Amino acid sequence: MASVLQPTAQGRAEFYRRLDKDNLTPLWEVLHNLVPPAPSSPAVPAYWNYRAIRPYIEESGRVITAKEAIRRVLILENPGMRGSSSITRSLYCGLQLILPGEVAPSHRHTQSALRFIVEGSGAYTAVDGERVTMHPGDFIITPPWTWHDHGNTGSESVVWMDGLDIPMVSFFTAQFAENYPEDVQPVTRAEGDAQARYGANMVPLGPLPTAKTSPVFSYPYERSREVLETLARDGDPDPCHGWKMQYINPLSGGFAMPTIGSFIQRLPKGFRTRACRSTDGTVYSVVEGRGRARIGESAYAFEPRDTFVVPSWYPLEIEATESCVLFSYSDRPAQAALGLWREQRD
Amino acid sequence: MASVLQPTAQGRAEFYRRLDKDNLTPLWEVLHNLVPPAPSSPAVPAYWNYRAIRPYIEESGRVITAKEAIRRVLILENPGMRGSSSITRSLYCGLQLILPGEVAPSHRHTQSALRFIVEGSGAYTAVDGERVTMHPGDFIITPPWTWHDHGNTGSESVVWMDGLDIPMVSFFTAQFAENYPEDVQPVTRAEGDAQARYGANMVPLGPLPTAKTSPVFSYPYERSREVLETLARDGDPDPCHGWKMQYINPLSGGFAMPTIGSFIQRLPKGFRTRACRSTDGTVYSVVEGRGRARIGESAYAFEPRDTFVVPSWYPLEIEATESCVLFSYSDRPAQAALGLWREQRD
Amino acid sequence: MASVLQPTAQGRAEFYRRLDKDNLTPLWEVLHNLVPPAPSSPAVPAYWNYRAIRPYIEESGRVITAKEAIRRVLILENPGMRGSSSITRSLYCGLQLILPGEVAPSHRHTQSALRFIVEGSGAYTAVDGERVTMHPGDFIITPPWTWHDHGNTGSESVVWMDGLDIPMVSFFTAQFAENYPEDVQPVTRAEGDAQARYGANMVPLGPLPTAKTSPVFSYPYERSREVLETLARDGDPDPCHGWKMQYINPLSGGFAMPTIGSFIQRLPKGFRTRACRSTDGTVYSVVEGRGRARIGESAYAFEPRDTFVVPSWYPLEIEATESCVLFSYSDRPAQAALGLWREQRD
Amino acid sequence: MASVLQPTAQGRAEFYRRLDKDNLTPLWEVLHNLVPPAPSSPAVPAYWNYRAIRPYIEESGRVITAKEAIRRVLILENPGMRGSSSITRSLYCGLQLILPGEVAPSHRHTQSALRFIVEGSGAYTAVDGERVTMHPGDFIITPPWTWHDHGNTGSESVVWMDGLDIPMVSFFTAQFAENYPEDVQPVTRAEGDAQARYGANMVPLGPLPTAKTSPVFSYPYERSREVLETLARDGDPDPCHGWKMQYINPLSGGFAMPTIGSFIQRLPKGFRTRACRSTDGTVYSVVEGRGRARIGESAYAFEPRDTFVVPSWYPLEIEATESCVLFSYSDRPAQAALGLWREQRD
Repeated sequence: MASVLQPTAQGRAEFYRRLDKDNLTPLWEVLHNLVPPAPSSPAVPAYWNYRAIRPYIEESGRVITAKEAIRRVLILENPGMRGSSSITRSLYCGLQLILPGEVAPSHRHTQSALRFIVEGSGAYTAVDGERVTMHPGDFIITPPWTWHDHGNTGSESVVWMDGLDIPMVSFFTAQFAENYPEDVQPVTRAEGDAQARYGANMVPLGPLPTAKTSPVFSYPYERSREVLETLARDGDPDPCHGWKMQYINPLSGGFAMPTIGSFIQRLPKGFRTRACRSTDGTVYSVVEGRGRARIGESAYAFEPRDTFVVPSWYPLEIEATESCVLFSYSDRPAQAALGLWREQRD
Repeated sequence: MASVLQPTAQGRAEFYRRLDKDNLTPLWEVLHNLVPPAPSSPAVPAYWNYRAIRPYIEESGRVITAKEAIRRVLILENPGMRGSSSITRSLYCGLQLILPGEVAPSHRHTQSALRFIVEGSGAYTAVDGERVTMHPGDFIITPPWTWHDHGNTGSESVVWMDGLDIPMVSFFTAQFAENYPEDVQPVTRAEGDAQARYGANMVPLGPLPTAKTSPVFSYPYERSREVLETLARDGDPDPCHGWKMQYINPLSGGFAMPTIGSFIQRLPKGFRTRACRSTDGTVYSVVEGRGRARIGESAYAFEPRDTFVVPSWYPLEIEATESCVLFSYSDRPAQAALGLWREQRD
Repeated sequence: MASVLQPTAQGRAEFYRRLDKDNLTPLWEVLHNLVPPAPSSPAVPAYWNYRAIRPYIEESGRVITAKEAIRRVLILENPGMRGSSSITRSLYCGLQLILPGEVAPSHRHTQSALRFIVEGSGAYTAVDGERVTMHPGDFIITPPWTWHDHGNTGSESVVWMDGLDIPMVSFFTAQFAENYPEDVQPVTRAEGDAQARYGANMVPLGPLPTAKTSPVFSYPYERSREVLETLARDGDPDPCHGWKMQYINPLSGGFAMPTIGSFIQRLPKGFRTRACRSTDGTVYSVVEGRGRARIGESAYAFEPRDTFVVPSWYPLEIEATESCVLFSYSDRPAQAALGLWREQRD
Repeated sequence: MASVLQPTAQGRAEFYRRLDKDNLTPLWEVLHNLVPPAPSSPAVPAYWNYRAIRPYIEESGRVITAKEAIRRVLILENPGMRGSSSITRSLYCGLQLILPGEVAPSHRHTQSALRFIVEGSGAYTAVDGERVTMHPGDFIITPPWTWHDHGNTGSESVVWMDGLDIPMVSFFTAQFAENYPEDVQPVTRAEGDAQARYGANMVPLGPLPTAKTSPVFSYPYERSREVLETLARDGDPDPCHGWKMQYINPLSGGFAMPTIGSFIQRLPKGFRTRACRSTDGTVYSVVEGRGRARIGESAYAFEPRDTFVVPSWYPLEIEATESCVLFSYSDRPAQAALGLWREQRD
């Protein structure tokens, strides 16, 4: 090949036009954007006050039935990514309403889902033949490709937060979905069966489930709350996180879901966390207490049932004006599995 | 909450407008797109004939120096995703030219890179103080966050395919990058050191590398070719893949890289694979032989050094008019780690 | 070397004598014993009736103090291996008595220990600064190399079964032991701390314990019993094992201890197991119910608190004349880790 | 229970006699022996000079045929454990002779075997249908429960060291063995097949072997020697071990065999290792060079083909009067899997 001749800007532009026809493009014109020095995300900090949006949730109950909607959900969309149905770059968040007597029909998909109960008791979700009754603060999993439907056999409206990996499964172009032939799948196991089989630090003899998702699909708040109290009694809070627990799959000791990490933490009254950050954009749901969250340059006062989102690599600092309990979820297990997760604690 | 009243289309639209102001959106209007019955990707099948694009590569050598470009690469951009610098939804592909005497300066980033040598010998890549000399057909890894630079101390122009996970690391918003203070990092270990330490079915006593990427960062074609011959001698070709090997990390037995799977396969003359498909969009580089690839409804005749791309879930059928060797890479390890990978073999 | 000449028996004997001086011995004379066609063990089936031996346990309380004895234990020795302090080839079993007000002094060793509470409540065992209160049917672990002492702050005599891997650690010549400078280690964590941190399908953020033994060191019978009831409600009993659970380490999903497997099973009234066998010699402690165990050619009628041992590869058949709960332990995790465990179910 | 009365020695003896009838024994009389402060093993240091014992090996070739003997082996028995066919507490060692034209008939067993070639070329071992030709210094594995036979199709007598886990499999009472219906199993794969499939940092697509033993069953000395040279070129020797490599299973990165660890190390001329010790009793075979091994209070001058054994926890110090290469094996993987392995490096 010949020696290098530095062409004019015009010459380069003409070269690029010729390349373009063959689906080629010069890396050196985009390198800095492709390989930036630090994370750069279209997602921005955001916050939803539950009292402010609850009328919309209620109204959605008059606008469409659960059955017609399949899932009657208001998506919480990141203001920096409107139209994408995403709350972070890789995750989806919605608030689902199910009224007494309603059913959200059975289907299955390769997306993983979590439910975190925000308001009301007496609804259930059914996973592969077992129903679990919902109470505020419960964390419930729908593993990928399992039949699931929801219903409300109680007398209260029930609202929960849905966290899914829809954008991630879309990114990997690995979406599959099917509807169940009936609205409701048959109940084949009594409530508590999975908890007894896998959730009591024991397993039945014989072949175990090999899926990457925890076979324990319900983590009741009653127990989580008690755990947080015990931690608080026995040790100092972490400067970044207070007392923070990660839900696990007891068959592996790892995250409860392969794509979504889920956490619950307690901050004592008056505690102010150090500003820390990590590469997993995180969605928070306030369970108990009031406080203030500073996310990068934004700051929000929060109260129970509120939602806020911390994009990747934005520092988060929380001040607990009351004793607080916060649930959160992010794509940490995916990032960790791929060797991408980083944290900065100071 | 009140009883359900089916509103008019107009009433709904008005409701949606109010929701919109609070960054809320109704799931039921987008559910089918978010959770489609089968993979749907913006990527399309595509093909680049090396003889056709080689003049551009040569011309790039006259348009810019390796040093000025940092990396003198023409990106192969998927025709369905122009402007995204992506060849599949999650992966990047480029052809890099380095002329005799040139150096591509040292830097590091959280993106993983592979090099597959297409033409010419005598260039080297240096990873964390060890250089490896390139020959056509060699598969070389740059693990994330390792200093790396390339140089050409020989007398031939050298061209290789760069495969990176740039879109994936961007999707997870986990990009970090740094330049080395000098153009070229110092050589601290003789060539072959990593191969000896980790690549000969032995390891040194003491703590082993814990990174998720193979410490064996070079897989010479001489050995790969021999392996394919042995396989071909001892067993029948797989109906979908012929004789196909996966490069591994011998410290884990798993994929050589956590985000990118890499493969080499041999098809005997006259062999025609069954049409098979999988969820990992795959980039192929032809090493030896001629044939024809049918990808969904598209078909391409290929010859050595050509590139073609099979998007997720598109059936691929290859007819080998000559004995062929094909290198390929995809995001299979990421999909497998996340529980998303599926294959259909018939 | 010269051609083969078949020597006389006398010539061989003379050759063997010469070899012997140099610590050599001809394999062909012992091959069949060294590599037998099927397991052959010095252990034999055996049974201890608790009512019969309880007077000895009581008497031991008058013969020596817990403090003087360090551990006041009567070893259950396999009749086929007297003098070895073993109940199976690889495991030790004893019954330990601690009287109200007594303390068994603190020490640590590389041997793993389990405690299964047979009679009485109100004693405690302390592991690394945390005490757990004992109740009949509780399964408690002392991980290797953790300081541990026992005490009885209640008003009842307490008896538990000690299961240790003493013969195994001796076989591997990896025994280490130390006494604590005081009789009783300080209490640094409140009761329930380990259970909260690791036993509720959650873990604290931050580095986790890396030991091979479960950090959950207490598995209360109250919960185990409930789990067995749930299993019995939801599915048919296994023909060999009834409803049988394995205690796990929730940080790995594997056995709770690396050398000793521990199990609890329930048989409905009138159930008769199929005669099954496995290579792990197993010690049983009867928790509830009466029945009959046939072990090879031996048969024993059992009642609560009795102990029996099934040597490797002896078929076991149990007939439950009442609804039964049985605890058992064996060296299964060691055999599984080494690729040695086999089971025959028919 | 009644208050404690310290009985007389005579009273205790009488109590012990009564206990004895019921297969009970008081722990407090044996506790110190059962749980000693540091490893105590019946094995002692020992050494076999190859020149001294070679005449016996040669003579064994005249005393019995390989076929009649099944395996014509002289067992190297630890002088502290005569009659046990063991060289350490858990391992067996023998020297096997096969004369030109002979065959050692095909069988299989649950014991794992390694072969380390001491003298002569041209014999083969066959594992599951694939033969591998032996050369001095080659390390070859016979995985458990695989059919294997040996033959000598060359013109030289061949002697190799057999290392097996016979005592360990006996301890776990998990021995199974079968003879093949013919003396020689059929050859179904060409030599080098396993090496190509699994030994070149690649694996074939599709299900992989799940056994715990490396599917690469031959590690030629030619390659090992080269690796040791590369290590010696690029870094300083370890003070305890010189340059020491561990043979691995490239499908896991772990030990090549689940029960036996195998190593090869190089010491430069004049090097003297620090006295180090570990809990795995280790057998050494000298491949190249002369030196002196101090094992506890014993010391031996060694030369090529000699064998020596270092019992558990005995300090070993080696002085290399010439540049040396040593092969060794021990039960390290078993100890590591069970959490028992310890090392002391100073």
